[in-house]
Amino acid sequence: MIEEFTNRKTIRKYTEQEVSDDLLYQLLEAASHASTTGNMQLYSVIITRDKEKKAALAPTHFNQKPFIGAPVVLTFCADYNRFNKWCEQRKAVPGYNNFLSFTTAAIDTLLLAQNFAALAEHEGLGLCFLGTTTYNAPQIAKILNLPKYVVPVTTITLGYPAEDPELQDRIPVRGFVHSESYHDYDFEDIDRIFDHKESLEVNRQFVKENKKETLAQIFTDIRYTKKDGDHFSKIYFDYIKEQFEF
Amino acid sequence: MIEEFTNRKTIRKYTEQEVSDDLLYQLLEAASHASTTGNMQLYSVIITRDKEKKAALAPTHFNQKPFIGAPVVLTFCADYNRFNKWCEQRKAVPGYNNFLSFTTAAIDTLLLAQNFAALAEHEGLGLCFLGTTTYNAPQIAKILNLPKYVVPVTTITLGYPAEDPELQDRIPVRGFVHSESYHDYDFEDIDRIFDHKESLEVNRQFVKENKKETLAQIFTDIRYTKKDGDHFSKIYFDYIKEQFEF
Repeated sequence: MIEEFTNRKTIRKYTEQEVSDDLLYQLLEAASHASTTGNMQLYSVIITRDKEKKAALAPTHFNQKPFIGAPVVLTFCADYNRFNKWCEQRKAVPGYNNFLSFTTAAIDTLLLAQNFAALAEHEGLGLCFLGTTTYNAPQIAKILNLPKYVVPVTTITLGYPAEDPELQDRIPVRGFVHSESYHDYDFEDIDRIFDHKESLEVNRQFVKENKKETLAQIFTDIRYTKKDGDHFSKIYFDYIKEQFEF
Repeated sequence: MIEEFTNRKTIRKYTEQEVSDDLLYQLLEAASHASTTGNMQLYSVIITRDKEKKAALAPTHFNQKPFIGAPVVLTFCADYNRFNKWCEQRKAVPGYNNFLSFTTAAIDTLLLAQNFAALAEHEGLGLCFLGTTTYNAPQIAKILNLPKYVVPVTTITLGYPAEDPELQDRIPVRGFVHSESYHDYDFEDIDRIFDHKESLEVNRQFVKENKKETLAQIFTDIRYTKKDGDHFSKIYFDYIKEQFEF
């Protein structure tokens, strides 16, 4: 399994082959045995296959190719609604209208999502996580009819692979693991950790095409700008606050 | 792998056998091939083995048994510090002082943590996630010497299993999966979804011992109270704000 996990690749192009509901539910059931806070399973998964639903959701994911081309899309949501309803039906007063409860549910949700991803890839499926889920959560919620106490956290686009991309680089393991205490990075550490990434032809080309001086500028000036980050921060946080009524 | 994932169990008691650094780094390296936003790998993992460090950390995890008994503990942190330092060293101006950047880093961190967990369990290790990480993040950060832009998100206690507990129940898969649209739960749905959990002898006993009327009351009145939730919400959110300087 170590080798399989090491060689995994994000897949953004899919064949037209459907992913059966049987397989999907089987994988989601197995994935749900991941760790969950107090065994509360504070999540819901919304399956999107319907063409009209997909068309409605597409702009919330900026019409990204993996979204458009995927036969099935899964939206993973932090969900305290089901648990709250259970409490209310059982003479218990739920007090989960706070930030920590959102965080707890989001953790459950992401452990489920990654467990599902590992299983799906093992079964020969290809997938891509969409970070746009946190950008446009309110619109996604509206389209998927999410009630209070439910917040989209991540999305997986899924299908059978129609591409075999290069293995993506990762920083050296000792670049992100610390023994006993966080050892802050000095100038040489940073050079060493990012050297391989910066040396890759694909990244050098990327810098050149965008007329930038460094690869880091691609991130700060184009891909993940302060302007967008501040903008979507406010939208996502306000939405969490509204949904979790705090 | 479906069967393996379905039969996984959280392990809270460990033998005295050490988990070698070689194995740990090998598993963390493989796990780091999990999906990550823009391949930024916005996380750090702090390994705790040292007895004094463990003693210092123990109260932050309320001296829980899996923490005390584990030969090794891993604290998974959302980390924009390394990435910011790289940007600054490469004539790029990072603008990640906002809530979305914390969220993005936390997502990366949790996908890594779950990928690591699946691998570790496959290798015969046993582990337990500790939700207390979000409760006492500021104290954990102080003990582990975390700089700005680094926030603890989850903790895994790890070792070779010294117990073989019962498989934990899960709600039916159709209880958390929705097709096309979120179908809100009515009275009968809630009864059906939680019926099995409520019928378990261990849970009935738990309700009786605590002199409660329902299992839900165990959660709302004892395990996850509004008072604690509100208290730790403020601490965690203020700490994220401080660390991510927004």
